[in-house]
Amino acid sequence: MPLPRTARTFSPPVMEARRWLDGVTFPADRPLINVSQAAPVEAPPEALRRVVAEAALNRPEAHLYGPVLGLPELREEVATQWSAAYGGTLAAENVAITSGCNQAFCAAITTLCAEGDEVIVPTPWYFNHKMWLDMAGVRSVALPAGAELLPDPDQAARLITPRTRAIVLVTPNNPGGVEYPADLVRAFFDLARSCGIALIVDETYRDFDERPGAPHDLFHDPDWHDTLIQLYSFSKAYRLTGHRVGAMVASPARLAEAEKFLDTVTICPNQLGQIAALWGMQNLGQWLAGERTEILDRRAAIHDNMPKLLAQGWRLLGCGAYFAYMAHPFEETSDQLAPKLVREAGVLLLPGTMFQPEDHASGQREMRVAFANLDRAGITTLFERLEALRWPLAPATGNA
Amino acid sequence: MPLPRTARTFSPPVMEARRWLDGVTFPADRPLINVSQAAPVEAPPEALRRVVAEAALNRPEAHLYGPVLGLPELREEVATQWSAAYGGTLAAENVAITSGCNQAFCAAITTLCAEGDEVIVPTPWYFNHKMWLDMAGVRSVALPAGAELLPDPDQAARLITPRTRAIVLVTPNNPGGVEYPADLVRAFFDLARSCGIALIVDETYRDFDERPGAPHDLFHDPDWHDTLIQLYSFSKAYRLTGHRVGAMVASPARLAEAEKFLDTVTICPNQLGQIAALWGMQNLGQWLAGERTEILDRRAAIHDNMPKLLAQGWRLLGCGAYFAYMAHPFEETSDQLAPKLVREAGVLLLPGTMFQPEDHASGQREMRVAFANLDRAGITTLFERLEALRWPLAPATGNA
Repeated sequence: MPLPRTARTFSPPVMEARRWLDGVTFPADRPLINVSQAAPVEAPPEALRRVVAEAALNRPEAHLYGPVLGLPELREEVATQWSAAYGGTLAAENVAITSGCNQAFCAAITTLCAEGDEVIVPTPWYFNHKMWLDMAGVRSVALPAGAELLPDPDQAARLITPRTRAIVLVTPNNPGGVEYPADLVRAFFDLARSCGIALIVDETYRDFDERPGAPHDLFHDPDWHDTLIQLYSFSKAYRLTGHRVGAMVASPARLAEAEKFLDTVTICPNQLGQIAALWGMQNLGQWLAGERTEILDRRAAIHDNMPKLLAQGWRLLGCGAYFAYMAHPFEETSDQLAPKLVREAGVLLLPGTMFQPEDHASGQREMRVAFANLDRAGITTLFERLEALRWPLAPATGNA
Repeated sequence: MPLPRTARTFSPPVMEARRWLDGVTFPADRPLINVSQAAPVEAPPEALRRVVAEAALNRPEAHLYGPVLGLPELREEVATQWSAAYGGTLAAENVAITSGCNQAFCAAITTLCAEGDEVIVPTPWYFNHKMWLDMAGVRSVALPAGAELLPDPDQAARLITPRTRAIVLVTPNNPGGVEYPADLVRAFFDLARSCGIALIVDETYRDFDERPGAPHDLFHDPDWHDTLIQLYSFSKAYRLTGHRVGAMVASPARLAEAEKFLDTVTICPNQLGQIAALWGMQNLGQWLAGERTEILDRRAAIHDNMPKLLAQGWRLLGCGAYFAYMAHPFEETSDQLAPKLVREAGVLLLPGTMFQPEDHASGQREMRVAFANLDRAGITTLFERLEALRWPLAPATGNA
């Protein structure tokens, strides 16, 4: 008797990590530093909150079903802003609004894959991608990223089989933090096109990319939508994680297929969240630029503090967007280490094992630090706590 | 090459029906009567809208991620009210909040089924259930309901195979409108239990059940959660369709499995919708009782007007909740008839073919009228328009 779909994947890592906090108390002068989740912890700007409140009070349609693929004005706004930002021509018909970016990924895969198909995913990977592929009966073919945490298109080409339906890139990367160079993204696009498979590019963190200008040129290609499926989240940019609003950018034909999935799973994205996202896009450009500057400063603070940990044998593998991805120096595996860090250091982070296939040894050396909610002082404190760790364990020998 | 999952199902019927309106204009003195969708068209009460607005303005957590399985207070409230209403003992741990009731169904199936498994579904069925089963690679085994639109447990027993994982009931029924007698629901529960499969009971329309008291006694059974998965929607009761809030009531073990699906597909239900649902449950009981009375009066208006159509050869197969399910007298099939009704009668409704397997002839005679948004006068007008129809088609001969 085959296992039901959910039995073929693991429990949500963020929820599991939260359980490590059970029964642990943190002194007032040494509070928990929670760097486990990539999510804003403050409310969106007051002006946006007023818009949502106003809509709740005075716009009846804000409480009623909307179109499955989202509010036409929001789809239009995404198309217009994307056309300007990426230098291509997108229409509202290329944009679907989803109940968060995770759902956009699920929808994309459901339009592409059947039971037993394969999708190539660079590792370390985003665990919710892996979970959906497991539940969809799709084999996740791991493409181990190299030393710079960059996947290699030539290596990917060797993994393609007749059952391969897509390659998934996340840039800026979760958990690795690295921003994929435009020519690397283009090389994957060319590979996918030449093989007749899809390239899914998840750009959830694109608003915090350090590089000015477009992060890739794929939308310049008039036939981009034959190959590319781009995913986006409004959650990080406008602090709307509790509203569940994301987007999928693809061909109208693919979105018509996605519509079947979205209609069946949620009927439509919630209306207030869409109203918030639309207002944010139209009015918070300047504010978002400030948010980006702040995140980039925090990222710089990681680099500034890193020498403390380098001296203890840690290494910084990648840093960007909301994340620093690091190798620790201890013999203990990262999944043994992480729960202990809660007690020993008052730090909650996710071990690399949560972002790797079980048989990949590298995950046991790695840690993801979601630093976006820590200011410079907080980052300094975090690094001091990690620096002070003196395990009864000998440092690991050899390379991670 | 196997078809991708979405290619194995049909397009959303409600969206398809909406396209029949394209290019059709309706005179001001004869506006469109839209009885195609089961959804409120008015905003929720002002007091509830104020609560949502207040939360948007002043509660930061209303904009941020919440627990995957929903707000603890809302789970607790459902458990408490259900325990009282059904006469059983439910705990918050038995309740998950979902992004609408459709998502609850998808989650339930994903915890139960693998590729190639089977689920027994009485026909006429709810099309989104069929769509999810198609996309999940699960065979929908049709259990044709009898003359009263009631499915027969003995007939269901004969359809059970080693691959059967669940039976799905919708009561009050969509599209049939009928309220399943408590002993019928119990008989299905006993059957499911004896075969070691699940019974999924979708009670989206339970707040508009004509019968006083609990619609079934399944929660009396201390081991109900070994077999029963109950689904609910807050959308109809409190006019929250645009917020996407539903519930799944099951064992904690099953909800832990559902958590994997919900985390991956949406991360969490949106917060403002949950705040609205919680406030509605705690404060709108009296208001909801009034809504129910109004719906029951509209249902009575269907019966009062029916003689007009009986004289033309129509039959009323079922009536309740938001729906009248009728057999038409024309030779044309219902899917040919429905688009024409837009032009000829200014009426948008869904044909029975959308609720039946393609090879079931009965769907061709049937029509679903979602009457909940029509007051008595509107229902009278609807029936007058249908009564006036004089097709160039001969009435169908024989039984439908």
